[in-house]
Amino acid sequence: MRFSTLLLHLAQQGVLNDTAPRHLAGDPELSGAAAVDQAATGQLSFLMPGHQLSAALATCCASALLLPLDPELQQLAQERGLAWVALKDPRLGFAEALAALHPPRQWPAGIHPSAVIDPSASVGVGVHIAAHVVVGADCLVGEGCVLHAGVVLYPDVHLAEGCEVHANAVLHPGSRLARGCVVHSNAVIGSEGFGFVPTANGWRKMPQTGLVVLEEQVEVGCGTTIDRPSVGETRIGAGTKIDNLVQIGHGVVTGRGCALAAQVGIAGGARLGNGVILAGQVGVANRTTIGDRAIASSKSGLHGDIAAGEVVSGYPAIPNRLWLRCSAAFSKLPELARSVRQLKAAASDH
Amino acid sequence: MRFSTLLLHLAQQGVLNDTAPRHLAGDPELSGAAAVDQAATGQLSFLMPGHQLSAALATCCASALLLPLDPELQQLAQERGLAWVALKDPRLGFAEALAALHPPRQWPAGIHPSAVIDPSASVGVGVHIAAHVVVGADCLVGEGCVLHAGVVLYPDVHLAEGCEVHANAVLHPGSRLARGCVVHSNAVIGSEGFGFVPTANGWRKMPQTGLVVLEEQVEVGCGTTIDRPSVGETRIGAGTKIDNLVQIGHGVVTGRGCALAAQVGIAGGARLGNGVILAGQVGVANRTTIGDRAIASSKSGLHGDIAAGEVVSGYPAIPNRLWLRCSAAFSKLPELARSVRQLKAAASDH
Amino acid sequence: MRFSTLLLHLAQQGVLNDTAPRHLAGDPELSGAAAVDQAATGQLSFLMPGHQLSAALATCCASALLLPLDPELQQLAQERGLAWVALKDPRLGFAEALAALHPPRQWPAGIHPSAVIDPSASVGVGVHIAAHVVVGADCLVGEGCVLHAGVVLYPDVHLAEGCEVHANAVLHPGSRLARGCVVHSNAVIGSEGFGFVPTANGWRKMPQTGLVVLEEQVEVGCGTTIDRPSVGETRIGAGTKIDNLVQIGHGVVTGRGCALAAQVGIAGGARLGNGVILAGQVGVANRTTIGDRAIASSKSGLHGDIAAGEVVSGYPAIPNRLWLRCSAAFSKLPELARSVRQLKAAASDH
Repeated sequence: MRFSTLLLHLAQQGVLNDTAPRHLAGDPELSGAAAVDQAATGQLSFLMPGHQLSAALATCCASALLLPLDPELQQLAQERGLAWVALKDPRLGFAEALAALHPPRQWPAGIHPSAVIDPSASVGVGVHIAAHVVVGADCLVGEGCVLHAGVVLYPDVHLAEGCEVHANAVLHPGSRLARGCVVHSNAVIGSEGFGFVPTANGWRKMPQTGLVVLEEQVEVGCGTTIDRPSVGETRIGAGTKIDNLVQIGHGVVTGRGCALAAQVGIAGGARLGNGVILAGQVGVANRTTIGDRAIASSKSGLHGDIAAGEVVSGYPAIPNRLWLRCSAAFSKLPELARSVRQLKAAASDH
Repeated sequence: MRFSTLLLHLAQQGVLNDTAPRHLAGDPELSGAAAVDQAATGQLSFLMPGHQLSAALATCCASALLLPLDPELQQLAQERGLAWVALKDPRLGFAEALAALHPPRQWPAGIHPSAVIDPSASVGVGVHIAAHVVVGADCLVGEGCVLHAGVVLYPDVHLAEGCEVHANAVLHPGSRLARGCVVHSNAVIGSEGFGFVPTANGWRKMPQTGLVVLEEQVEVGCGTTIDRPSVGETRIGAGTKIDNLVQIGHGVVTGRGCALAAQVGIAGGARLGNGVILAGQVGVANRTTIGDRAIASSKSGLHGDIAAGEVVSGYPAIPNRLWLRCSAAFSKLPELARSVRQLKAAASDH
Repeated sequence: MRFSTLLLHLAQQGVLNDTAPRHLAGDPELSGAAAVDQAATGQLSFLMPGHQLSAALATCCASALLLPLDPELQQLAQERGLAWVALKDPRLGFAEALAALHPPRQWPAGIHPSAVIDPSASVGVGVHIAAHVVVGADCLVGEGCVLHAGVVLYPDVHLAEGCEVHANAVLHPGSRLARGCVVHSNAVIGSEGFGFVPTANGWRKMPQTGLVVLEEQVEVGCGTTIDRPSVGETRIGAGTKIDNLVQIGHGVVTGRGCALAAQVGIAGGARLGNGVILAGQVGVANRTTIGDRAIASSKSGLHGDIAAGEVVSGYPAIPNRLWLRCSAAFSKLPELARSVRQLKAAASDH
């Protein structure tokens, strides 16, 4: 694809203005893209504030670059004879460019003969159902859904239009996916929550009869598990993105646009607001409430209430700035203890 | 189901005495159940000590309630015109009520034609084997077992009667499941333990030739992995319940009735007593020994020996009460360090 | 197998010298192996420095033993009438002995009729493809590979010769496995990295168009997930062994011979040197660089740069020896705080 064709595409996607500064430099043919320190001739790359920009640009071997709105960098690119365009958000531009250079694979409509579809299931038009898929009784599979090989839908699973479920993922009864959800390989949605009542004869299982609702455009990572509750719903807000190997307990509710990194665990009944970001391996205790746009750094453990907009760290989680100071002090604890011993000795000498 | 019919069921299950206080209030027809703050007409709910009971009851819209043995609450329910019954353990009653209102799905006996069963395998009567299941050589599948879609039994797997294995779970050679075990979707039992011997040419794998034994009524969560050892057994005690994404290393032995929450990791050779409870994301180091009924709070890291009945927290784990005080002090470390600096300055002024 | 036959095997494998001290003691027939405290007649066991050797030997019921090069132990074994041989590395000898006593199951060449192989895929000689496997377009499956039941290869996956992929594992487009790799059950290789760009309309997915490269003899545990990057490669160095439920983010690169224990999480773009060892539940922040042969103890959280050969612990990770002292001091924080209060009170009395 010519660089100029790519620019047209970026404009169509709304990430590039007609007036954006640019330089075609012979309008190179682009066959792919790469990171700025790895790109070769024929490849596109991008620079973002935060990179060491001038140095990166000086040695970059890409044929074309997406630059931030920085005249100095643009001049440097010009001097190096590179094609470039300047955007407000080069990273977003790069996402659109990658989609243009590597269009996502299309999965043709049709049902593989080895798939087993219950006669009571309803399958919309344009659906792709791959080999060895199982669709249980009373399932609804909306228009344009893609079910990859080995996917199992238990009875009573509803997928709205345009959902994609990757290989060997499993959806249990009561799973309700709104439009455009993506479930990655080996994820499990709607499994029984971990609810047991202690009795004289051991643990008695609490039946888990509720629903798991994924609102529109939710994405669920590989191997992630989202449990259904005994009653009521587990609900993941629209546009929330969940990474791999995350555990979401029964009755958890998240707001819109949250981002949950890999290996996060959220215990039963926790409530997350909109736009909450949990970094890797964070744990959230049961019935914890987390306000809108709160952020927890990796490995932190949250319980109780976290206010909107707070940034927390540590276990138990405390404000991030405080935690940074406490952690620094922690690594000096032996010295601190020695100082106190010396002070005590001196005091007792008096 | 009428409320009175439900009461008969609870009595049959042994969770309700004939003499338990009750009020039928027109004997409402119940179509389901819900949490006390979400229940609507036609639904059952329950109140437990720990809820803010009177307030919850005052606004509850359920038609019927399971109450604790508290005359005040019973009178309040009476005044609101609700049907109710009082039990020693309303949560246990609610479990039985849910099972009555939502009887678990029955899976008919039979083998789906797409299943692949090795001729040397032995399959008991009343077994349900779903689509795309694989049963390897020399497997034993006991009476009434249910194997959901996509389950793979490698050769030499034994399931006693009444086991249920959910979709896409995998059982490796040497897996031995006693009666009534449940393996949830995408769990892996009997995989090779992570044993490697360092050599001049890199890691040499230690062959893992042992068994994994699940005693009666063990439940294994989605995506959980339980490894087999090089020699001997990994053994999970009767009635132990394991949540999602738990890792149990080779040669681990647990007692009866343990509860292991999501994302717990137990390294090779650890020994757990009876009734041990590990909260979410707990880690147990190899060869650690944990006494009966010990409890570890979430994210704690255990090594060495933990005495019976201890409640531990933190990493490395220390007694919970001590840990709570230490954690509180941790968040004041910067102040403490400042105080010590001031004291030192004052001392040097003398 | 006779003990003498086993010794021949060990010599062939290069773990036993002809001149190694030994005693046949009637050359017992060996039917299996066990840990030293569990072995019975007819079984082989081994002793390693670190065991309480003399005591273990005194009560050991094995018929034959692999011993370290310690004349005292050899004499004790002699006195007890056991067959024995002494090796430099009895544990390595035991690995070879187990492989001889329990030869790994052979999977015959052939393609199960229920497998679905795209006509454009290339399948080498001697390949075993089990039931319900799916091999997508343009895949290459090298000579002697074993694909167990339910494995899904998306289009454009390359397996070099002698790879083994266990049941229900999933390999995504762009996965490139060199010779002799092993992927355990339910692992997912080459899934889309967790890359999203924030926009006014929520998260915009960054297309993940790169490769995942596993070099020779890499082993990937059950349920482990290794993501592909937006551009470039995720690369796992030759001979690296990865345990269960590990998450490896997009663009991570590891050196040769690393060992990553269960539930480790490595965020995007991190770089590990050769021979790095990460214990269970360790987290590595994005773009962290870890030097050759560095070791992180369980549950530690690494970010920034870790020097070659360092042993680190804690979160944030600090040198292990320092962390041990800090952790000890942590558990005495309440006392320390009290001492400081007393010193302050005494000072203000002056």
